[in-house]
Amino acid sequence: MNLRARVSFVGAGPGDPELVTLKALRRLREADVVIHDRLVPAALLGDAPPGAEVIDAGKAPGRHCLAQSEINWLLVDRARRRGRVVRLKGGDPAVFGRLAEEVDAVRSAGVPFEIVPGVTAATAAAARAGISLTERGAASMVVFATATDHNGSVVSGLDWGLLARAEGTLAFYMGVRALETVTASLTVLGRDAREPAILVERVGGPGERIIAGRLGEIAAAARAAGAESPAVLIVGPTVRVGGPEMAPHTPPTLGSGPAKPGRSSMAGVVHVS
Amino acid sequence: MNLRARVSFVGAGPGDPELVTLKALRRLREADVVIHDRLVPAALLGDAPPGAEVIDAGKAPGRHCLAQSEINWLLVDRARRRGRVVRLKGGDPAVFGRLAEEVDAVRSAGVPFEIVPGVTAATAAAARAGISLTERGAASMVVFATATDHNGSVVSGLDWGLLARAEGTLAFYMGVRALETVTASLTVLGRDAREPAILVERVGGPGERIIAGRLGEIAAAARAAGAESPAVLIVGPTVRVGGPEMAPHTPPTLGSGPAKPGRSSMAGVVHVS
Repeated sequence: MNLRARVSFVGAGPGDPELVTLKALRRLREADVVIHDRLVPAALLGDAPPGAEVIDAGKAPGRHCLAQSEINWLLVDRARRRGRVVRLKGGDPAVFGRLAEEVDAVRSAGVPFEIVPGVTAATAAAARAGISLTERGAASMVVFATATDHNGSVVSGLDWGLLARAEGTLAFYMGVRALETVTASLTVLGRDAREPAILVERVGGPGERIIAGRLGEIAAAARAAGAESPAVLIVGPTVRVGGPEMAPHTPPTLGSGPAKPGRSSMAGVVHVS
Repeated sequence: MNLRARVSFVGAGPGDPELVTLKALRRLREADVVIHDRLVPAALLGDAPPGAEVIDAGKAPGRHCLAQSEINWLLVDRARRRGRVVRLKGGDPAVFGRLAEEVDAVRSAGVPFEIVPGVTAATAAAARAGISLTERGAASMVVFATATDHNGSVVSGLDWGLLARAEGTLAFYMGVRALETVTASLTVLGRDAREPAILVERVGGPGERIIAGRLGEIAAAARAAGAESPAVLIVGPTVRVGGPEMAPHTPPTLGSGPAKPGRSSMAGVVHVS
Protein backbone atom coordinates (compact mmCIF):
# COMPACT_ATOMS: atom_id res chain seq x y z
CA MET A 1 0.00 0.00 0.00
CA ASN A 2 0.98 3.59 -0.63
CA LEU A 3 2.74 4.80 2.52
CA ARG A 4 0.82 8.06 2.34
CA ALA A 5 -2.50 6.20 2.16
CA ARG A 6 -5.03 7.90 4.39
CA VAL A 7 -8.64 8.92 4.15
CA SER A 8 -9.61 12.12 5.95
CA PHE A 9 -13.35 12.50 6.35
CA VAL A 10 -13.58 16.27 6.55
CA GLY A 11 -16.49 18.47 7.54
CA ALA A 12 -16.74 21.46 5.22
CA GLY A 13 -19.21 23.32 7.42
CA PRO A 14 -22.62 24.59 6.42
CA GLY A 15 -21.81 26.34 3.14
CA ASP A 16 -20.11 29.60 4.06
CA PRO A 17 -16.43 29.14 3.09
CA GLU A 18 -15.47 31.13 6.21
CA LEU A 19 -17.12 28.54 8.43
CA VAL A 20 -14.52 25.94 7.57
CA THR A 21 -11.91 25.00 10.17
CA LEU A 22 -8.18 25.56 9.85
CA LYS A 23 -7.67 21.80 9.98
CA ALA A 24 -10.11 21.14 7.15
CA LEU A 25 -8.30 23.70 5.05
CA ARG A 26 -4.92 22.15 5.83
CA ARG A 27 -6.13 18.68 4.85
CA LEU A 28 -7.54 20.05 1.62
CA ARG A 29 -4.23 21.72 0.77
CA GLU A 30 -2.34 18.45 1.32
CA ALA A 31 -4.79 16.32 -0.68
CA ASP A 32 -3.89 14.06 -3.57
CA VAL A 33 -7.56 13.31 -4.18
CA VAL A 34 -10.72 15.16 -3.11
CA ILE A 35 -14.07 13.36 -3.23
CA HIS A 36 -16.77 15.87 -2.39
CA ASP A 37 -20.50 16.04 -1.83
CA ARG A 38 -22.84 18.38 -3.64
CA LEU A 39 -23.33 20.62 -0.61
CA VAL A 40 -19.77 21.84 -0.09
CA PRO A 41 -18.79 25.42 -0.91
CA ALA A 42 -17.39 25.55 -4.44
CA ALA A 43 -14.83 28.13 -3.29
CA LEU A 44 -13.25 25.55 -1.00
CA LEU A 45 -12.36 23.19 -3.82
CA GLY A 46 -10.02 25.85 -5.13
CA ASP A 47 -7.83 25.17 -2.09
CA ALA A 48 -6.95 21.69 -3.32
CA PRO A 49 -3.48 21.53 -4.93
CA PRO A 50 -3.41 22.03 -8.72
CA GLY A 51 -2.44 18.41 -9.32
CA ALA A 52 -5.14 16.91 -7.10
CA GLU A 53 -7.89 14.76 -8.58
CA VAL A 54 -11.29 16.24 -7.67
CA ILE A 55 -14.28 13.92 -7.87
CA ASP A 56 -17.88 15.10 -7.49
CA ALA A 57 -19.79 12.39 -5.68
CA GLY A 58 -22.73 14.76 -5.22
CA LYS A 59 -26.11 13.29 -4.97
CA ALA A 60 -28.82 15.78 -5.81
CA PRO A 61 -32.21 14.54 -4.64
CA GLY A 62 -33.58 12.34 -7.40
CA ARG A 63 -30.47 12.78 -9.51
CA HIS A 64 -28.24 9.93 -8.64
CA CYS A 65 -24.55 10.52 -9.20
CA LEU A 66 -22.28 7.96 -7.59
CA ALA A 67 -23.69 4.94 -5.77
CA GLN A 68 -22.60 4.56 -2.16
CA SER A 69 -20.73 1.38 -3.11
CA GLU A 70 -18.84 3.29 -5.80
CA ILE A 71 -17.86 5.98 -3.30
CA ASN A 72 -16.70 3.34 -0.83
CA TRP A 73 -14.62 1.71 -3.54
CA LEU A 74 -13.13 5.02 -4.68
CA LEU A 75 -12.05 5.93 -1.14
CA VAL A 76 -10.06 2.75 -0.77
CA ASP A 77 -8.77 2.65 -4.33
CA ARG A 78 -7.55 6.24 -4.37
CA ALA A 79 -5.95 6.03 -0.92
CA ARG A 80 -4.01 2.95 -2.03
CA ARG A 81 -2.99 4.33 -5.40
CA ARG A 82 -2.64 8.07 -4.78
CA GLY A 83 -2.23 8.56 -1.01
CA ARG A 84 -3.98 11.41 0.76
CA VAL A 85 -7.72 11.30 0.14
CA VAL A 86 -10.01 14.00 1.50
CA ARG A 87 -13.64 12.97 1.64
CA LEU A 88 -15.28 16.39 1.90
CA LYS A 89 -18.79 16.43 3.32
CA GLY A 90 -21.18 19.29 4.04
CA GLY A 91 -21.57 20.29 7.69
CA ASP A 92 -20.16 17.81 10.18
CA PRO A 93 -19.49 14.34 8.77
CA ALA A 94 -20.90 12.55 11.85
CA VAL A 95 -24.31 14.25 11.62
CA PHE A 96 -26.43 12.85 8.77
CA GLY A 97 -23.33 12.59 6.62
CA ARG A 98 -23.64 8.86 5.85
CA LEU A 99 -20.28 8.56 7.50
CA ALA A 100 -20.67 5.14 9.12
CA GLU A 101 -20.85 3.23 5.84
CA GLU A 102 -17.77 4.91 4.45
CA VAL A 103 -15.77 4.52 7.64
CA ASP A 104 -16.68 0.82 7.71
CA ALA A 105 -15.46 0.39 4.13
CA VAL A 106 -12.17 2.16 4.79
CA ARG A 107 -11.61 0.41 8.11
CA SER A 108 -12.36 -2.99 6.58
CA ALA A 109 -9.77 -2.35 3.88
CA GLY A 110 -7.16 -1.54 6.51
CA VAL A 111 -6.67 2.02 5.28
CA PRO A 112 -5.81 4.54 8.03
CA PHE A 113 -8.42 7.23 8.44
CA GLU A 114 -9.35 10.21 10.54
CA ILE A 115 -12.41 12.39 10.97
CA VAL A 116 -12.15 16.17 11.02
CA PRO A 117 -15.32 17.59 12.57
CA GLY A 118 -17.09 20.63 11.16
CA VAL A 119 -19.83 23.11 11.95
CA THR A 120 -23.13 21.29 11.52
CA ALA A 121 -26.12 22.87 9.78
CA ALA A 122 -28.35 23.07 12.86
CA THR A 123 -25.96 25.22 14.87
CA ALA A 124 -25.22 27.36 11.82
CA ALA A 125 -28.97 27.83 11.32
CA ALA A 126 -29.42 28.80 14.96
CA ALA A 127 -26.55 31.28 14.67
CA ARG A 128 -28.09 32.80 11.57
CA ALA A 129 -31.41 33.20 13.37
CA GLY A 130 -29.74 34.70 16.44
CA ILE A 131 -30.98 32.03 18.82
CA SER A 132 -29.61 29.40 21.15
CA LEU A 133 -30.57 25.74 20.84
CA THR A 134 -30.47 25.17 24.59
CA GLU A 135 -31.43 27.26 27.58
CA ARG A 136 -31.09 26.73 31.30
CA GLY A 137 -34.42 25.59 32.68
CA ALA A 138 -36.21 25.68 29.31
CA ALA A 139 -34.24 23.36 27.03
CA SER A 140 -31.72 20.98 28.61
CA MET A 141 -31.63 18.99 25.41
CA VAL A 142 -31.70 19.41 21.66
CA VAL A 143 -32.61 16.68 19.20
CA PHE A 144 -31.12 16.62 15.71
CA ALA A 145 -33.29 14.46 13.47
CA THR A 146 -33.46 13.84 9.79
CA ALA A 147 -36.87 13.76 8.25
CA THR A 148 -35.84 12.87 4.73
CA ASP A 149 -33.35 10.60 3.02
CA HIS A 150 -31.00 11.69 0.24
CA ASN A 151 -33.82 11.37 -2.28
CA GLY A 152 -35.99 13.81 -0.34
CA SER A 153 -38.44 11.09 0.78
CA VAL A 154 -39.68 11.01 4.36
CA VAL A 155 -37.73 8.46 6.40
CA SER A 156 -39.52 5.71 8.23
CA GLY A 157 -38.67 4.61 11.72
CA LEU A 158 -38.52 8.01 13.36
CA ASP A 159 -40.29 8.02 16.75
CA TRP A 160 -42.69 10.91 16.18
CA GLY A 161 -44.43 10.34 19.50
CA LEU A 162 -41.15 10.88 21.31
CA LEU A 163 -40.31 13.95 19.24
CA ALA A 164 -43.75 15.40 19.91
CA ARG A 165 -43.25 15.01 23.65
CA ALA A 166 -39.59 16.02 23.90
CA GLU A 167 -39.14 19.00 26.22
CA GLY A 168 -36.41 20.78 24.42
CA THR A 169 -35.42 21.95 20.98
CA LEU A 170 -35.92 19.94 17.80
CA ALA A 171 -33.78 20.56 14.73
CA PHE A 172 -34.71 18.70 11.55
CA TYR A 173 -32.28 18.34 8.68
CA MET A 174 -34.59 17.97 5.75
CA GLY A 175 -35.87 18.59 2.30
CA VAL A 176 -38.65 21.18 2.27
CA ARG A 177 -41.07 18.77 0.56
CA ALA A 178 -41.39 16.91 3.86
CA LEU A 179 -42.20 20.00 5.91
CA GLU A 180 -45.96 19.43 5.97
CA THR A 181 -45.46 15.80 7.06
CA VAL A 182 -43.05 16.78 9.81
CA THR A 183 -45.13 19.57 11.31
CA ALA A 184 -48.39 17.58 11.03
CA SER A 185 -46.79 14.51 12.64
CA LEU A 186 -45.61 16.58 15.58
CA THR A 187 -48.87 18.46 16.17
CA VAL A 188 -51.16 15.44 15.68
CA LEU A 189 -49.16 13.63 18.35
CA GLY A 190 -49.47 16.48 20.80
CA ARG A 191 -46.84 19.13 20.15
CA ASP A 192 -48.27 22.63 20.55
CA ALA A 193 -49.10 24.07 17.13
CA ARG A 194 -48.42 27.55 18.56
CA GLU A 195 -44.80 26.74 19.37
CA PRO A 196 -42.40 29.12 17.62
CA ALA A 197 -40.53 27.65 14.67
CA ILE A 198 -37.91 28.80 12.21
CA LEU A 199 -37.00 27.33 8.86
CA VAL A 200 -33.56 28.23 7.56
CA GLU A 201 -33.22 27.50 3.86
CA ARG A 202 -29.85 26.80 2.25
CA VAL A 203 -27.98 27.39 5.51
CA GLY A 204 -24.70 29.23 5.08
CA GLY A 205 -25.00 29.30 1.32
CA PRO A 206 -26.01 31.89 -1.23
CA GLY A 207 -29.73 32.64 -1.07
CA GLU A 208 -29.99 31.68 2.59
CA ARG A 209 -33.36 32.75 4.02
CA ILE A 210 -35.14 32.53 7.33
CA ILE A 211 -38.85 31.83 7.49
CA ALA A 212 -40.39 32.34 10.88
CA GLY A 213 -43.77 31.13 12.05
CA ARG A 214 -45.58 28.89 14.43
CA LEU A 215 -45.25 25.14 14.15
CA GLY A 216 -48.81 24.80 12.85
CA GLU A 217 -48.37 27.41 10.15
CA ILE A 218 -44.78 27.30 9.01
CA ALA A 219 -45.27 24.66 6.31
CA ALA A 220 -47.82 26.88 4.56
CA ALA A 221 -45.57 29.93 4.96
CA ALA A 222 -42.64 28.04 3.48
CA ARG A 223 -44.72 26.85 0.56
CA ALA A 224 -45.96 30.38 -0.08
CA ALA A 225 -42.38 31.65 0.01
CA GLY A 226 -41.13 28.98 -2.39
CA ALA A 227 -38.62 27.66 0.15
CA GLU A 228 -35.92 25.42 -1.24
CA SER A 229 -33.93 22.47 0.08
CA PRO A 230 -31.81 21.80 1.96
CA ALA A 231 -33.29 23.34 5.05
CA VAL A 232 -33.21 23.12 8.81
CA LEU A 233 -36.41 23.42 10.82
CA ILE A 234 -35.93 24.50 14.43
CA VAL A 235 -38.81 24.18 16.88
CA GLY A 236 -38.71 24.84 20.58
CA PRO A 237 -38.72 27.16 23.55
CA THR A 238 -35.51 28.96 22.58
CA VAL A 239 -36.80 30.10 19.20
CA ARG A 240 -37.19 33.85 19.10
CA VAL A 241 -37.47 36.21 16.22
CA GLY A 242 -36.55 39.81 16.32
CA GLY A 243 -33.60 42.08 15.91
CA PRO A 244 -32.16 44.53 18.38
CA GLU A 245 -34.48 47.21 17.10
CA MET A 246 -37.31 45.55 18.97
CA ALA A 247 -38.19 46.57 22.49
CA PRO A 248 -36.98 44.31 25.26
CA HIS A 249 -39.15 41.25 25.78
CA THR A 250 -41.43 42.05 22.89
CA PRO A 251 -43.17 38.84 21.94
CA PRO A 252 -41.65 37.35 18.80
CA THR A 253 -43.25 38.35 15.54
CA LEU A 254 -44.61 35.06 14.39
CA GLY A 255 -46.91 33.72 11.75
CA SER A 256 -45.71 36.34 9.37
CA GLY A 257 -44.25 35.80 5.96
CA PRO A 258 -40.72 34.96 5.00
CA ALA A 259 -37.85 36.99 6.29
CA LYS A 260 -35.07 37.90 3.96
CA PRO A 261 -32.20 39.04 6.09
CA GLY A 262 -29.73 41.38 4.49
CA ARG A 263 -26.39 39.88 3.57
CA SER A 264 -24.75 41.74 6.45
CA SER A 265 -22.79 39.72 8.93
CA MET A 266 -25.30 40.48 11.68
CA ALA A 267 -26.88 37.09 12.11
CA GLY A 268 -28.95 38.31 15.01
CA VAL A 269 -30.64 41.02 13.02
CA VAL A 270 -33.46 39.06 11.49
CA HIS A 271 -36.05 41.34 9.98
CA VAL A 272 -39.40 39.66 9.76
CA SER A 273 -41.72 41.42 7.35
CA MET B 1 -23.22 54.70 21.07
CA ASN B 2 -19.87 53.76 19.61
CA LEU B 3 -20.44 53.28 15.89
CA ARG B 4 -18.31 50.15 15.97
CA ALA B 5 -20.40 48.69 18.82
CA ARG B 6 -21.07 45.04 18.15
CA VAL B 7 -21.01 41.84 20.14
CA SER B 8 -19.89 38.71 18.27
CA PHE B 9 -20.73 35.52 20.13
CA VAL B 10 -18.04 33.26 18.70
CA GLY B 11 -17.65 29.50 18.96
CA ALA B 12 -14.02 28.59 19.62
CA GLY B 13 -14.55 24.90 18.88
CA PRO B 14 -13.77 22.01 21.21
CA GLY B 15 -10.27 22.92 22.35
CA ASP B 16 -7.95 22.11 19.46
CA PRO B 17 -6.85 25.51 18.08
CA GLU B 18 -6.99 24.02 14.56
CA LEU B 19 -10.70 23.31 14.96
CA VAL B 20 -11.53 27.01 14.95
CA THR B 21 -13.22 28.51 11.89
CA LEU B 22 -11.72 31.16 9.65
CA LYS B 23 -14.52 33.51 10.66
CA ALA B 24 -13.88 33.06 14.37
CA LEU B 25 -10.23 33.86 13.80
CA ARG B 26 -11.10 36.96 11.78
CA ARG B 27 -13.42 38.26 14.49
CA LEU B 28 -10.75 37.65 17.10
CA ARG B 29 -8.18 39.60 15.07
CA GLU B 30 -10.56 42.57 14.75
CA ALA B 31 -11.55 42.59 18.43
CA ASP B 32 -11.28 45.57 20.76
CA VAL B 33 -12.35 43.40 23.70
CA VAL B 34 -12.35 39.63 24.17
CA ILE B 35 -14.42 38.07 26.95
CA HIS B 36 -13.66 34.38 27.08
CA ASP B 37 -14.76 31.25 28.88
CA ARG B 38 -12.43 28.92 30.68
CA LEU B 39 -12.69 26.20 28.02
CA VAL B 40 -11.25 28.05 25.06
CA PRO B 41 -7.80 27.19 23.70
CA ALA B 42 -5.23 29.51 25.26
CA ALA B 43 -3.36 29.64 21.92
CA LEU B 44 -6.34 31.37 20.35
CA LEU B 45 -6.21 34.35 22.66
CA GLY B 46 -2.84 35.20 21.16
CA ASP B 47 -4.68 36.08 17.97
CA ALA B 48 -6.36 39.07 19.58
CA PRO B 49 -4.70 42.38 18.67
CA PRO B 50 -2.00 43.58 21.10
CA GLY B 51 -4.16 46.48 22.28
CA ALA B 52 -7.27 44.40 22.93
CA GLU B 53 -8.64 44.02 26.43
CA VAL B 54 -8.87 40.31 27.31
CA ILE B 55 -11.23 39.34 30.13
CA ASP B 56 -11.41 35.85 31.61
CA ALA B 57 -15.02 35.18 32.52
CA GLY B 58 -14.21 31.51 33.08
CA LYS B 59 -16.27 29.63 35.49
CA ALA B 60 -14.52 26.55 36.82
CA PRO B 61 -16.98 24.20 38.51
CA GLY B 62 -17.29 25.36 42.10
CA ARG B 63 -14.89 28.25 41.55
CA HIS B 64 -17.04 31.15 40.64
CA CYS B 65 -15.42 33.86 38.57
CA LEU B 66 -17.81 36.35 37.03
CA ALA B 67 -21.54 36.23 37.73
CA GLN B 68 -23.76 35.93 34.68
CA SER B 69 -25.17 39.39 35.38
CA GLU B 70 -21.64 40.81 35.41
CA ILE B 71 -20.87 39.19 32.06
CA ASN B 72 -24.12 40.56 30.62
CA TRP B 73 -23.20 44.02 31.86
CA LEU B 74 -19.65 43.80 30.51
CA LEU B 75 -20.87 42.81 27.04
CA VAL B 76 -23.04 45.89 26.76
CA ASP B 77 -20.63 48.24 28.51
CA ARG B 78 -17.60 47.27 26.46
CA ALA B 79 -19.48 47.30 23.15
CA ARG B 80 -20.68 50.84 23.90
CA ARG B 81 -17.34 52.11 25.12
CA ARG B 82 -14.80 50.16 23.08
CA GLY B 83 -16.60 48.81 20.00
CA ARG B 84 -15.95 45.29 18.76
CA VAL B 85 -16.54 42.75 21.50
CA VAL B 86 -15.85 39.06 20.93
CA ARG B 87 -17.59 36.79 23.41
CA LEU B 88 -15.54 33.64 22.96
CA LYS B 89 -17.19 30.42 24.08
CA GLY B 90 -16.01 26.82 23.95
CA GLY B 91 -17.57 24.62 21.25
CA ASP B 92 -20.63 26.10 19.59
CA PRO B 93 -22.25 28.99 21.48
CA ALA B 94 -25.81 27.73 20.84
CA VAL B 95 -25.19 24.31 22.45
CA PHE B 96 -25.01 24.51 26.25
CA GLY B 97 -23.17 27.80 25.97
CA ARG B 98 -25.61 29.85 28.09
CA LEU B 99 -26.06 31.95 24.99
CA ALA B 100 -29.73 32.87 25.37
CA GLU B 101 -29.23 34.99 28.51
CA GLU B 102 -26.38 36.94 26.99
CA VAL B 103 -28.15 37.48 23.67
CA ASP B 104 -31.20 38.73 25.55
CA ALA B 105 -29.08 41.22 27.47
CA VAL B 106 -27.36 42.54 24.36
CA ARG B 107 -30.58 42.64 22.34
CA SER B 108 -32.40 44.47 25.15
CA ALA B 109 -29.67 47.09 25.21
CA GLY B 110 -30.02 47.65 21.48
CA VAL B 111 -26.46 46.59 20.71
CA PRO B 112 -26.01 44.87 17.33
CA PHE B 113 -24.85 41.31 17.62
CA GLU B 114 -24.07 38.22 15.60
CA ILE B 115 -23.40 34.58 16.36
CA VAL B 116 -20.49 32.74 14.75
CA PRO B 117 -21.10 28.99 15.06
CA GLY B 118 -18.35 26.56 15.97
CA VAL B 119 -17.59 22.85 16.16
CA THR B 120 -19.49 21.50 19.15
CA ALA B 121 -17.94 19.03 21.61
CA ALA B 122 -20.18 16.07 20.71
CA THR B 123 -19.21 15.98 17.06
CA ALA B 124 -15.56 16.55 17.95
CA ALA B 125 -15.78 13.65 20.41
CA ALA B 126 -17.37 11.42 17.77
CA ALA B 127 -14.63 12.38 15.31
CA ARG B 128 -11.96 11.57 17.85
CA ALA B 129 -13.53 8.16 18.46
CA GLY B 130 -13.85 7.47 14.73
CA ILE B 131 -17.62 7.08 14.81
CA SER B 132 -20.71 8.65 13.33
CA LEU B 133 -23.53 10.00 15.49
CA THR B 134 -26.21 8.98 13.01
CA GLU B 135 -26.67 6.02 10.71
CA ARG B 136 -29.25 5.16 8.12
CA GLY B 137 -31.74 2.74 9.59
CA ALA B 138 -30.04 2.60 13.00
CA ALA B 139 -29.96 6.20 14.25
CA SER B 140 -32.13 8.78 12.50
CA MET B 141 -31.68 11.10 15.42
CA VAL B 142 -29.12 12.21 17.95
CA VAL B 143 -29.89 13.92 21.25
CA PHE B 144 -27.47 16.38 22.82
CA ALA B 145 -28.25 16.71 26.50
CA THR B 146 -26.52 18.27 29.43
CA ALA B 147 -26.46 16.31 32.61
CA THR B 148 -24.76 18.87 34.80
CA ASP B 149 -24.86 22.60 35.31
CA HIS B 150 -21.80 24.86 35.43
CA ASN B 151 -21.18 23.82 39.03
CA GLY B 152 -20.99 20.15 38.10
CA SER B 153 -24.32 19.33 39.80
CA VAL B 154 -26.85 17.09 38.08
CA VAL B 155 -29.56 19.17 36.41
CA SER B 156 -33.18 18.62 37.24
CA GLY B 157 -35.93 18.56 34.68
CA LEU B 158 -34.31 16.23 32.17
CA ASP B 159 -36.78 13.64 30.86
CA TRP B 160 -34.80 10.49 31.65
CA GLY B 161 -37.66 8.24 30.58
CA LEU B 162 -37.59 9.77 27.14
CA LEU B 163 -33.82 9.53 26.92
CA ALA B 164 -33.93 5.90 28.03
CA ARG B 165 -36.37 5.06 25.22
CA ALA B 166 -34.91 7.21 22.45
CA GLU B 167 -33.96 5.10 19.44
CA GLY B 168 -30.86 6.90 18.37
CA THR B 169 -27.65 8.29 19.74
CA LEU B 170 -27.35 10.18 23.02
CA ALA B 171 -24.52 12.61 23.66
CA PHE B 172 -24.21 14.07 27.14
CA TYR B 173 -22.17 17.19 27.81
CA MET B 174 -21.21 16.75 31.42
CA GLY B 175 -18.94 16.73 34.38
CA VAL B 176 -17.62 13.24 35.13
CA ARG B 177 -18.98 13.36 38.70
CA ALA B 178 -22.47 12.88 37.26
CA LEU B 179 -21.57 9.83 35.18
CA GLU B 180 -22.94 7.27 37.64
CA THR B 181 -26.22 9.17 37.92
CA VAL B 182 -26.58 9.45 34.16
CA THR B 183 -25.87 5.81 33.34
CA ALA B 184 -27.98 4.53 36.26
CA SER B 185 -30.91 6.77 35.30
CA LEU B 186 -30.84 5.47 31.75
CA THR B 187 -30.55 1.79 32.61
CA VAL B 188 -33.07 1.83 35.47
CA LEU B 189 -35.60 3.32 33.06
CA GLY B 190 -35.00 0.65 30.47
CA ARG B 191 -31.99 1.46 28.35
CA ASP B 192 -29.90 -1.64 27.64
CA ALA B 193 -26.92 -1.76 30.00
CA ARG B 194 -24.99 -3.65 27.29
CA GLU B 195 -25.24 -0.77 24.82
CA PRO B 196 -21.81 0.43 23.70
CA ALA B 197 -20.68 3.73 25.17
CA ILE B 198 -17.72 6.03 24.87
CA LEU B 199 -16.56 8.76 27.21
CA VAL B 200 -14.28 11.37 25.71
CA GLU B 201 -12.49 13.41 28.36
CA ARG B 202 -11.26 16.91 27.69
CA VAL B 203 -12.37 16.79 24.05
CA GLY B 204 -9.92 18.43 21.66
CA GLY B 205 -7.66 19.59 24.44
CA PRO B 206 -4.39 18.40 25.92
CA GLY B 207 -4.80 15.13 27.79
CA GLU B 208 -7.81 14.08 25.75
CA ARG B 209 -8.64 10.42 26.39
CA ILE B 210 -11.25 7.96 25.22
CA ILE B 211 -12.75 5.46 27.63
CA ALA B 212 -14.81 2.73 26.01
CA GLY B 213 -17.24 0.42 27.71
CA ARG B 214 -20.79 -0.66 27.97
CA LEU B 215 -23.41 1.69 29.37
CA GLY B 216 -23.71 -0.34 32.56
CA GLU B 217 -19.98 -0.38 33.21
CA ILE B 218 -18.52 2.82 31.86
CA ALA B 219 -19.00 4.86 35.05
CA ALA B 220 -16.86 2.40 36.99
CA ALA B 221 -14.26 2.31 34.21
CA ALA B 222 -14.10 6.10 34.15
CA ARG B 223 -13.72 6.27 37.92
CA ALA B 224 -10.96 3.67 37.82
CA ALA B 225 -9.20 5.65 35.10
CA GLY B 226 -9.47 8.92 37.01
CA ALA B 227 -11.40 10.58 34.20
CA GLU B 228 -11.63 14.35 34.36
CA SER B 229 -14.19 16.95 33.33
CA PRO B 230 -15.36 18.21 30.96
CA ALA B 231 -16.41 15.11 29.13
CA VAL B 232 -18.83 13.90 26.51
CA LEU B 233 -20.58 10.56 26.93
CA ILE B 234 -21.85 9.00 23.71
CA VAL B 235 -24.26 6.07 23.87
CA GLY B 236 -25.98 4.40 20.96
CA PRO B 237 -26.01 2.05 18.03
CA THR B 238 -23.32 3.88 16.08
CA VAL B 239 -20.68 3.58 18.81
CA ARG B 240 -17.87 1.30 17.73
CA VAL B 241 -14.38 0.91 19.02
CA GLY B 242 -11.51 -0.36 16.98
CA GLY B 243 -8.90 0.87 14.61
CA PRO B 244 -8.19 -0.24 11.08
CA GLU B 245 -5.86 -2.92 12.39
CA MET B 246 -8.91 -4.91 13.45
CA ALA B 247 -10.48 -7.45 11.12
CA PRO B 248 -13.64 -6.35 9.34
CA HIS B 249 -16.78 -6.61 11.43
CA THR B 250 -14.92 -7.66 14.55
CA PRO B 251 -17.20 -6.88 17.48
CA PRO B 252 -16.03 -3.80 19.34
CA THR B 253 -13.72 -4.37 22.27
CA LEU B 254 -15.87 -3.21 25.10
CA GLY B 255 -15.87 -3.22 28.85
CA SER B 256 -12.12 -2.86 28.85
CA GLY B 257 -10.11 -0.21 30.56
CA PRO B 258 -9.31 3.27 29.43
CA ALA B 259 -7.82 3.88 26.05
CA LYS B 260 -5.10 6.41 25.65
CA PRO B 261 -4.87 7.13 21.97
CA GLY B 262 -1.58 8.39 20.66
CA ARG B 263 -1.39 12.07 19.77
CA SER B 264 -1.37 11.22 16.08
CA SER B 265 -3.97 12.83 13.91
CA MET B 266 -5.62 9.48 13.22
CA ALA B 267 -8.84 9.85 15.10
CA GLY B 268 -10.04 6.49 13.88
CA VAL B 269 -7.14 4.61 15.39
CA VAL B 270 -8.39 4.12 18.90
CA HIS B 271 -6.38 1.49 20.68
CA VAL B 272 -8.31 -0.05 23.51
CA SER B 273 -6.09 -1.84 25.95
